[in-house]
This record gives sequence, C-alpha cells and structure tokens, in this order.
Amino acid sequence: MYKRIKEGVCAPKGFLASGIHCGIRKNKDKKDLALIYSEKMCIAASTYTLNKVQGAPILLTKKHLHNAQAQAILCNSGNANTCNPDGLEIAQAMAEACAQALHIDAEDIIIASTGVIGQPLALEPMTSHMPLLVQQLSNQNNTSACEAIMTTDTFTKDCAIELEIDDVMCKIGGISKGSGMIHPNMATMLCFVTSDVNITKPLLQKAVQNVVQDTFNMVSVDGDTSTNDMLSVMCNGCSNNPIIDTENEAYYAFERALHYVCEDLAKQIAKDGEGASKLLTCVVEHAKTIHDAKATAKAIITSSLFKSAMFGNDANWGRILCALGYAQSEVDVQKVDVYFQSEVGCIQVCKDGKGLAFDEDLALKILNTNEVTTKIDLNDGTHKATAWGCDLTYEYVRINGEYRT
Amino acid sequence: MYKRIKEGVCAPKGFLASGIHCGIRKNKDKKDLALIYSEKMCIAASTYTLNKVQGAPILLTKKHLHNAQAQAILCNSGNANTCNPDGLEIAQAMAEACAQALHIDAEDIIIASTGVIGQPLALEPMTSHMPLLVQQLSNQNNTSACEAIMTTDTFTKDCAIELEIDDVMCKIGGISKGSGMIHPNMATMLCFVTSDVNITKPLLQKAVQNVVQDTFNMVSVDGDTSTNDMLSVMCNGCSNNPIIDTENEAYYAFERALHYVCEDLAKQIAKDGEGASKLLTCVVEHAKTIHDAKATAKAIITSSLFKSAMFGNDANWGRILCALGYAQSEVDVQKVDVYFQSEVGCIQVCKDGKGLAFDEDLALKILNTNEVTTKIDLNDGTHKATAWGCDLTYEYVRINGEYRT
Repeated sequence: MYKRIKEGVCAPKGFLASGIHCGIRKNKDKKDLALIYSEKMCIAASTYTLNKVQGAPILLTKKHLHNAQAQAILCNSGNANTCNPDGLEIAQAMAEACAQALHIDAEDIIIASTGVIGQPLALEPMTSHMPLLVQQLSNQNNTSACEAIMTTDTFTKDCAIELEIDDVMCKIGGISKGSGMIHPNMATMLCFVTSDVNITKPLLQKAVQNVVQDTFNMVSVDGDTSTNDMLSVMCNGCSNNPIIDTENEAYYAFERALHYVCEDLAKQIAKDGEGASKLLTCVVEHAKTIHDAKATAKAIITSSLFKSAMFGNDANWGRILCALGYAQSEVDVQKVDVYFQSEVGCIQVCKDGKGLAFDEDLALKILNTNEVTTKIDLNDGTHKATAWGCDLTYEYVRINGEYRT
Repeated sequence: MYKRIKEGVCAPKGFLASGIHCGIRKNKDKKDLALIYSEKMCIAASTYTLNKVQGAPILLTKKHLHNAQAQAILCNSGNANTCNPDGLEIAQAMAEACAQALHIDAEDIIIASTGVIGQPLALEPMTSHMPLLVQQLSNQNNTSACEAIMTTDTFTKDCAIELEIDDVMCKIGGISKGSGMIHPNMATMLCFVTSDVNITKPLLQKAVQNVVQDTFNMVSVDGDTSTNDMLSVMCNGCSNNPIIDTENEAYYAFERALHYVCEDLAKQIAKDGEGASKLLTCVVEHAKTIHDAKATAKAIITSSLFKSAMFGNDANWGRILCALGYAQSEVDVQKVDVYFQSEVGCIQVCKDGKGLAFDEDLALKILNTNEVTTKIDLNDGTHKATAWGCDLTYEYVRINGEYRT
C-alpha cells in the first residue's frame, strides 16, 4: 500500500535525531536520553493520557504546545518524573538546557519522560550531556533515539513511509515505545511522529485526533492507563507540497498515511507488550454501532483469562464469550460467531453463541504461532473495529514483580 | 464480634448437605456434585452476574425463584453449562432428577454450575448418582459440599456464626467458591448461605442486595466477570424468632450478621484467587462520595501492575497513584496519602500525591507477608470503602494457560 522506507523519524526532510546514555539509568549499555530536532519550525499536535495523575512533562508540554508549534522533542527514559515535588521545575530545566544547546526557544520543545513513577529525577546527568546529545544529531541516528526511549521494550519500534500529495513526494516517520502500563486512553505510552508535509495547524490536529482513536486507543497490554502517555506529531512542511488547508483529497491522503504509520507502531507496541510471546488481534465485525464494535474488541483483548489462554495455545472460546458478555456494549449473544486464525489457517469454534465441535489439533496449530487473530462476527449490523494486545505470560509477572528492585 | 461456629451451611437448624464425585470431572478424587437441603421450605433471595452471557443454571434459577422460595440447592463443578445448545434442558433435567430423589417440587430447587464454558454437560453421571447424593445428606457433610463446588480453589471456604435476635439464638452459615474469573458484578462466582432466621421475603431480598454491594462486589481476582456468578440465601425460620417484618433492630442485626458472613467468604475468595500468594486489602478513606471511595479501591485492587508489584514485595506506590488516576472517580491527586500495612507494621510512602523518602527494608518486611493492606487517604471527605483482591503470580498464568487442556 505504501512504500516503507528506513530511518523512522529521520526519514522526512529536515529532521535529525540522537540518543545517548547520560546516566539516569545505572546500566551504561542502556541509552536514556533522546532528541528529535527539525531544522525548520514545525506545526505540532499532541494527544495525552486521560489519567488524572499526569507526569510533569505532560503538564509542561501542554503549555508549550498552546501555540501548536515546536521544533524539538526531548525525552528521557528510566524515570517518569511523575508525582515528584520538583517535577515541573525539573521538566522546565530540561527544556531550558536543551534550548540553550540548540539555540532555540525552550517553549518550542516537547518534553517527555518514561520510567518509574515517584522517584526524583536528577537534572545533572541530562544537563551535563546536553552538548553531546546535540552534537550527535544526525539523520542517521533514528535507531539511537528509538533505543533511548525504551524501558522494558525488547525491540526498537519505528515506521516510515512515502506518500504523494498533489504529485509531491512526502514522508511520514515515527518511533514509539510501550511494553507495560499500556492501555492508552487518548494516546499511547510514547510515540513521536515527524513529517515534511505542509499542512495547517487545525487540520493536523484533526488528523491526529481521528487517527489515535482507531490505532493507539485500541491497544492494551495490561489495562493500566499510564500517567505519561503522549503522541506528538510534528510537520515541518519541507516537502513543499501545496499547503493542505481544506478537507480535500490531499488531506485524506495524509490522514490515511498517518493512520498507517500509527497503526503499525501501535501493533509493534502490542507485540512487544511486557512478557508477550505473541501479538493478538481481535477483529469485531457486523456490530450495530461503532461503539459496540470497539467496546467488544477492547474487552476481549484486555481479559486476563483470554490472554492467559492464548499464552497456553488453548482454544478456550468460552472466555471470549464471557468478556463479550461483560463489555459495555449492546450485543445479541445468540448471534455471535467466533473464529481463530493465523498463518496456519482459520477455524470456527462458536456459532450463534453456542459451541461447535472443532478439530482441536488444528486449533492448537493455529494458536501456536506468534500472530493470532480472533474474529468475532456479531451478525447484527455493519460496523467493525480492531483491537491489538498480547498474551499474559510468566514473563509479565516476573518483569513487574521485579521492576523497581 | 460474633461467635464463629463450625459446619458452614449445616450450622443453622434444619439444613443438611452432601458432596460426591459423580463423574463430570475425570479425576475421581475431585468431588463434582453438591446438594444443600432444608427440611422445611425456605424463603430465598439471589443475586446474579450482570454478564450478558449467562449460564443456563442462572436462567433456570431466576425462573424458579420468582416466588422467592426454595428448599434445595444443586450445584455441579467441572462444567459451567453455559453457551451450550442444550443448556437449559440439561439444567431442567438436573432439577427434575433431584426433585424426584428428594420428593419435592423441581421449581423449589436452585441450580448452579461452575467450570468450563461451552462444553456439553452430560446428564447421566448426575442422574445416576442422585440417589447416592441424597442418601449422603447430613448435617455433618458441609465440607463435602464445599469440596464439590470447588474448581481451581485450593481450600474450602465456609463461615458460620451465631447471633441473637429478640433473645432467640439464630445461625447463619455459608460456603463459597471462587479462584478465577472473579470480578463479581452483582454477586460472586458461587456463594450459598443458609439461615434459620425467620424473616419476610422482601426484607431478606433487601438485606441480600445491601450486603452484596460491599462484600462480593468489592472483590476482584482478575477483572473478569463470570457468566455464572450467583449468591443464594435461604432462610427456613427454624430458629422461631418473632418474624422480622419491619426494618427494626432485629432486621439490622440480621443484615449486619449476613454482612459479616458474606465479607468473610468474599475475603476467602480473594485470598484463594488463582495463583495468589497473598490477600490484598485496599482501604480508601475520606473520599468525597461513596462512589469515589469504591471506584478508587476497585481500580487499585484490579490493576495488574499493582498486583504484580505486590507479588514481588515491591513498594512501587507509583502504580497505585496511576490506578487511582484512571479510576472513574473524582479525586484531588494533590491530597492523596498512601500507606502499606501488615502484621509487621505500617509505613507511609506518599504524602499529598508526592513521594516520601521511606525505609525500603521496613517496606519489604511489611509486604513480605501473606496479608497486606494498602491504605489510601484521600483527605477530601468522609466516605470509606474496602476492596479485596490478590497478587498476580506465575501460578495464575500457569493455571489459566493450561486450564482446559
């Protein structure tokens, strides 16, 4: 559909990135400070966690983006800078140190933090390494930036594509991190998207809001909505396409491409959920309303019992009906069909809300793969939704039992 | 407060019980069929799961209790008789076979089932063993009945107490089972309570509805609301107290005692949550409204991240603030204090929504016990609520990855 290209957030024209170890984390092999920088001022749009407890970086970034413009994103990992008495001062000092090194205005910097909540974040490691961080900026350093925003993630997550708008070649690139405390409500843990598309502020804001509903907000790793979720999109206009200022074909082309990048990054987050051994996709079809489709898909993908069964390759579809039954949605249980599918094949296990005799060996083969789709046909309308998640494993428990220690 | 006595549901006058292995489960050492019987017709009140998918036994029992009377409870384990094409017929046939053996009306029997969803339940093992089940009825067989309703439970759960009403000694007894798919919404997985108290139908119904809100509905093991949750209370009036027919002191004495029994059984369910290594209690104090107190307590006790931290004895209170932040409640985060306490001691870890320096060694000692209370002081009102749950362990994942296989 789209030509995929390399270099993530550095793929669009005019964007540079870097990532280094500055000392917030004890392990020197783990990078912990990332910077994304545009050579030209960008328009920017963000969505944030709806958690009532919000990290200091979220509070500061909301202020900085009042004018919907930004030129850089500074992000540390290892510490969420949340619930700290001096959180806001530290976030501000981060922005100021970065602004000084970049020779830009502190208010044009987006600040993000991810890691443990409620532990003081030391400023010094960041300020003392700011010159190095800026010096390392390059359009080849996307991977370093990816690495520097990771917490318990096991692989880097990026995506970049080309698209044509009014015959002008444009690019969109993004990086994200996820792993635990992933049940975004408004945005994902952290996702930064860059583009050289030329678009107005209101239309960028609209595109971001539309896209996040069907991508990041449909992912769940553990049902815990983080305090620091943030999706930020920056567009610097460097591709010089005629500005997108109405909801025309060019706008929809941009929104579809942004959707593609965000869905790809959202699925990577699900696949790399803490301890996950497989990516789970839940597709709900023929629902009465879009709300019913979404609520059903999310309830299933969030169910601990369903997630555990998938870990055990157990075609225990009764747990799917159970989750569907307690979802906040209108569903006629007597019409529900359930299928499992993967690269191995597809099998129906439930028809009209009742069990079917099925080939357990084939079911086991289908489930014993690393990407499994559960399809729920509600046979009751025309709406469809997809949610993504992962299985619940011993590793999830180990990681989260030991996280802070 | 109350004198605790033995024999659970058999403690009140006129009640008998039995539990046997009839062959629904393959393992002959596991009982799978239980019967509770009152020598005298009882008034009865039940609450049921709010899941839209409801087990056939629930549908049948609702019909049987239209007249608010019952004389027996028949319950099988190993199969939930839910989402089966012939579910209702099987449930009816269970009631008829039992009625015949007891020489009572089938409509005076409460039917319950617990186990795997969506697998046909064979009738024959139950009908062929019904004479034996009835023959074994005794006021000494409470434990057998307890055992026969267990699924992945690791210990039997019962509670019985004495109380005086109008100078007459009365008794209340109960048994329950839980373990997984425990996030009751209206009732718990299965709980059967007997009493020899003399009370009217409307007041029994009222007491049951009041009590379930603060007891079973405040327990969560895994956030999954079952399709077969049921609490049934039967009163046979055998203690001959003057009938309770108004909301007077006698009524409140009964409601308080019923609350005690239900809370005790609810806590046993939490403590024996699938794979649990400890009972977690979350007390929320000084909330603006009772809704805020309850929603906050339940969000915390349900958080996978909090539960994993408790398994790891990790005083990671940031996860508590995170769950509090996404709870559907009004909370002023800047006023929140958090404490951990157990038999070892008490430690404050968060004040006014911000971290406190605390003694990590003491915190570890407090958490490394099998009953831990997390106290949240919202400092914002007069309302209080308590929720119960358990930690999330490797065992939970193992049990649920392997459950059906």
